[in-house]
Amino acid sequence: MNPNLQEMATALRILAMDAVEKAKSGHPGLPMGMADVATVLYAHFLKFSPQHPEWADRDRFILSAGHGSMLLYGLNYLTGYQEMTLEELKKFRQLHSHTAGHPEASHPLGIETTTGPLGQGLANAVGMAIAEHHLRHEFGQDLVDHRTYVMAGDGCLMEGISHEAISLAGHLKLSKLIVLFDDNHISIDGKTDLSVSDNQLKRFDACGWATHSIDGHNYTEIRQALQTAQSAKCPTLIACRTIIGFGAPTKAGTASVHGSPLGSEEIAKTREALKWEFPPFEIPDTLLKQWRTLGERGAAAFTEWDHRLKASTNQKEFERRQKRETGTVWKKSLHEYIEKVLDEKPTTATRVSSGMTLDILSEAIPELLGGSADLTGSNNTKAKNMTAYSPQNPGGRYIHYGVREHGMAAAMNGIALHGGFIPYGGTFLVFSDYCRPAIRLSALTHQRVIYVMTHDSIGLGEDGPTHQPVEHLAALRAIPNLNVFRPCDAVEVAECWELALESRSTPSLLALTRQNLPVLRAEKNYSENLSARGGYILKEAEGVRQVTLLSTGSEVEISCKARDLLQIQGIPTAVVSLPCTRLFDLQAEEYRQHILGPQTIRIACEAAVSQGWDHYTGSRDHFIGMKSFGASAPYRELYEHFHITPEAIVTLALEKIQQRRERKS
Amino acid sequence: MNPNLQEMATALRILAMDAVEKAKSGHPGLPMGMADVATVLYAHFLKFSPQHPEWADRDRFILSAGHGSMLLYGLNYLTGYQEMTLEELKKFRQLHSHTAGHPEASHPLGIETTTGPLGQGLANAVGMAIAEHHLRHEFGQDLVDHRTYVMAGDGCLMEGISHEAISLAGHLKLSKLIVLFDDNHISIDGKTDLSVSDNQLKRFDACGWATHSIDGHNYTEIRQALQTAQSAKCPTLIACRTIIGFGAPTKAGTASVHGSPLGSEEIAKTREALKWEFPPFEIPDTLLKQWRTLGERGAAAFTEWDHRLKASTNQKEFERRQKRETGTVWKKSLHEYIEKVLDEKPTTATRVSSGMTLDILSEAIPELLGGSADLTGSNNTKAKNMTAYSPQNPGGRYIHYGVREHGMAAAMNGIALHGGFIPYGGTFLVFSDYCRPAIRLSALTHQRVIYVMTHDSIGLGEDGPTHQPVEHLAALRAIPNLNVFRPCDAVEVAECWELALESRSTPSLLALTRQNLPVLRAEKNYSENLSARGGYILKEAEGVRQVTLLSTGSEVEISCKARDLLQIQGIPTAVVSLPCTRLFDLQAEEYRQHILGPQTIRIACEAAVSQGWDHYTGSRDHFIGMKSFGASAPYRELYEHFHITPEAIVTLALEKIQQRRERKS
Repeated sequence: MNPNLQEMATALRILAMDAVEKAKSGHPGLPMGMADVATVLYAHFLKFSPQHPEWADRDRFILSAGHGSMLLYGLNYLTGYQEMTLEELKKFRQLHSHTAGHPEASHPLGIETTTGPLGQGLANAVGMAIAEHHLRHEFGQDLVDHRTYVMAGDGCLMEGISHEAISLAGHLKLSKLIVLFDDNHISIDGKTDLSVSDNQLKRFDACGWATHSIDGHNYTEIRQALQTAQSAKCPTLIACRTIIGFGAPTKAGTASVHGSPLGSEEIAKTREALKWEFPPFEIPDTLLKQWRTLGERGAAAFTEWDHRLKASTNQKEFERRQKRETGTVWKKSLHEYIEKVLDEKPTTATRVSSGMTLDILSEAIPELLGGSADLTGSNNTKAKNMTAYSPQNPGGRYIHYGVREHGMAAAMNGIALHGGFIPYGGTFLVFSDYCRPAIRLSALTHQRVIYVMTHDSIGLGEDGPTHQPVEHLAALRAIPNLNVFRPCDAVEVAECWELALESRSTPSLLALTRQNLPVLRAEKNYSENLSARGGYILKEAEGVRQVTLLSTGSEVEISCKARDLLQIQGIPTAVVSLPCTRLFDLQAEEYRQHILGPQTIRIACEAAVSQGWDHYTGSRDHFIGMKSFGASAPYRELYEHFHITPEAIVTLALEKIQQRRERKS
Repeated sequence: MNPNLQEMATALRILAMDAVEKAKSGHPGLPMGMADVATVLYAHFLKFSPQHPEWADRDRFILSAGHGSMLLYGLNYLTGYQEMTLEELKKFRQLHSHTAGHPEASHPLGIETTTGPLGQGLANAVGMAIAEHHLRHEFGQDLVDHRTYVMAGDGCLMEGISHEAISLAGHLKLSKLIVLFDDNHISIDGKTDLSVSDNQLKRFDACGWATHSIDGHNYTEIRQALQTAQSAKCPTLIACRTIIGFGAPTKAGTASVHGSPLGSEEIAKTREALKWEFPPFEIPDTLLKQWRTLGERGAAAFTEWDHRLKASTNQKEFERRQKRETGTVWKKSLHEYIEKVLDEKPTTATRVSSGMTLDILSEAIPELLGGSADLTGSNNTKAKNMTAYSPQNPGGRYIHYGVREHGMAAAMNGIALHGGFIPYGGTFLVFSDYCRPAIRLSALTHQRVIYVMTHDSIGLGEDGPTHQPVEHLAALRAIPNLNVFRPCDAVEVAECWELALESRSTPSLLALTRQNLPVLRAEKNYSENLSARGGYILKEAEGVRQVTLLSTGSEVEISCKARDLLQIQGIPTAVVSLPCTRLFDLQAEEYRQHILGPQTIRIACEAAVSQGWDHYTGSRDHFIGMKSFGASAPYRELYEHFHITPEAIVTLALEKIQQRRERKS
């Protein structure tokens, strides 16, 4: 036993206990239980420098069990992250503090990722370890050589996403990934044996992990296990048997200490038991100095690394990648491609033109790291120049994520958070449901993650209602800070990809068709990314506009046909394409009104539920789309069956024109 | 080898191959690969009677790998389900056929559950096995004694939900659950070793399952493994090593046979290889007779069972439960409780009043089977008279699902589909994202599953944005056939529970607060479930109504305060509570217009995104709510911070009144 370490761990415990008490809310159980493990990790293994929180080659420490946030805040205060002050700890869980209930990704604060929704951090870490491995291969061990440590609880390991993460990590032999499992036998409902009997060691072993089981309060065991993990050939699980709320004489080891303040009486007893004589938020100088020394230790390693970087021929490229700058070369190639599309007007599914766009982009942007959840051929996500990433081929830029949508999305968050890459990954749009918690976190953490989601409506046909998204566009558009793109043709596809790559703090989701579509854009010379404003007049009315048809994706073609039918009847009609409603909503009022034509009859058409469209049309019955789940049949029959046709639009438009006339007369 | 069985299996293979070819779409790989396993299962083990497809004590066969639907359709045609005719097989994947791309739950067709989204069937089966076990305990082995068989593929086992299902099933020692794993080493992207290296036997073993590995084309091995599984003390995994597309000489064993028609050339070669000389959709009489005999065999067992049922003192109760009838006794208790609430007007969180309601309901409705994903105390889901279900306590009516939201939701679907129970389960509303694919399937399969989702807004306070639902109400309301209830007080909570229980073919989701709320309903004598119409005038305007405030849940109180402030200023204002927008939308136009007051200034207030509210207010800027993710702080501060206050409503109302005046003048 190292008495110094023990005192250092006690400081962590007391800070957590007192901050939770002050906030009258929070989770003292994990920080008190895992303080010993954290202290050994930080004292002997973790490569980090609070003075250089953006250091690209730092080890990553992920608190997947995010409810134990006070552990992380305590560590980051004690080791000297400048912005994580004692004042912030006192403001735990208060408005405008740096110490939210659950950790929120921030380099200055030493928080690698946003956690709380269980299992996400573990899966983020898999992405970080992939990024490290790939980047190490690209730039060499001199510049990239770090580990990813995860602290996870029973909850993380019960969530399904943990299986996807563990299985993928084991398959990819991510040897620099080390998971510290807080094996405290307690969940919120009580003892874990109420709901789980898994043998976690056997389980991880089945997925190709090295496993250790230790006493999480024994410093020698902690250190030995971590030491062994340093040279593993596969990812490592260290199950740390701990007592939740360690140190609280009455409540330790029970569910009551998991997520509630200890109360003043128990706190007094804990101070006594842990021999801690200082008032709340007071750390004796000598102890603080020990922690700070530990935090300063990494500075030397950083300086050495920085010298290596500056001496490297790769410096410029490495820094460009870290700064998330993509340059502009790719834009030229992309615009040439768009001109070719405008010239040749190929009839293709938007999933196919997305693949063609990717062929161009992946040549010019080496940091694009693609993948699919076992739908590569359907999602058209594998660019021509990409090979499969694997332990044998760490330079491969395409990840076969397997049928693991949730694990894929969370790994992409981790890749983006790690830095050096722009991750994208594919699945069917309907399976956005399978990874929705991770999509939400892409948006909440402001990461440039790109979702390629094909088979975006009943237009996928025979696979039927289980595979036909109906409510998904609305459900995704409801997520703040997520750009949902639904391009109508090959030109818009390229434009949406351009926007996705340029959105550095907003994730993007491309909804793409299975079925073929014509090129609708008709400009002679390509000059402007029209999708950038979210919506625009694709086809102007001939004559004074009387009707405005609003549409996205595959239904824009239908609206164009309806427009022609209305024009024949002498009704001047414009077609508006709205590839991204969120970007459109951000435009100036004047522009929006110009596009929407508020004095005209406005009718929206989308092969999905109407929710959200009222905002653009003024009324839910100005809508042609889906009112129910889909059906299994060839797609043309489905469009007829569900009355999503040019004729249906025309009929509705005429009806509304008639109603307006009647009202006026 | 049993030559008869082999010919029978060939019939299955040929039917699948030909139907996919005719549809020019579908998945021949699984049916051809697993035909031998299916044939042995049906010939020697499965207890079923196509003449009595609703037989409560039949074994359940779940095709979790739903893309192999032609296997199931072939089996159900061959064994004699009356509505699954040869004509239907010819209409595979066509509009209005019984043979959708993926199986859709239907007893007459012999389809136990809707599958296709991978892993769902496996998790449904866990629910079915729980239901069987519990019902067996209640009604005795004479009436209930059946097994649940699942056929699952690599995809099912890669999905995270599989872990939740396997782990829960192992913990609960569901010995009558048997999983047949189609271990064909092929996924869509190619060989499974592209993306997965799990040792599945070890993995299942780690979760407490019995495991077997067999040659899936060896009838003796299949039979022996299934025989052993009959007497297991825990769930059983049988990994069946198969060749995908078995019988197709060139394509078998490759990814190309997974999800595409074989093509006429390969089909001819397959006919040759399998020595099948009949044209498509022609089954020789003798072979069909063998299959039909097999289908008829169960009729005798059914008759014996039916005699036992009729001789049982439990007959009436058993039949009531099977018919999903809840009677009316509980309604009386519930109404008495509501009257008490109206009398005493307790200030409680709606999650707490939901718990109080459950205490009443669970006494009167023995088929209520509750649970929570490890948030029992937070969700208030455990009724007073409930004990924990476990292997030792099969009569327990409360399931500690563990931190497994997705597994819980899918298990609840299975419990409902099995029959005999009304399942409900709790988690935080934000984690509806974790189980969204299963919620969608509750709606698609029309099951009475009740989701109790608490902590339904920023009102949960300190846990912060990762735990604060903002977009979830909109996202859930977008799902067809799902009643999303957000009651505003203890009376509405009871009313919404009543509606949820009475909605036999629509799942319900109750969004409930963490924070306390007053009772707003003020009737002297309770006479009508006002929530049944989805929305109603909670507080009428004094004077000619000029403003209508629309609200749900915790924001109804805020709207009521705003109303009082407006009334003081001489502006007659009504408050409309909209506990269920879907039910409101189903009301007659006249009623809806009466409630909404189209001539009045309408302002909606909900602590969530505005999406969907335009439909009721006419314009997005007539809304007080959230425009971003939340924050971590005490909840009263958050309401101030995000301007969701009576004052904000008043200011907006006055502004809109002023604008209207200006437009008129």
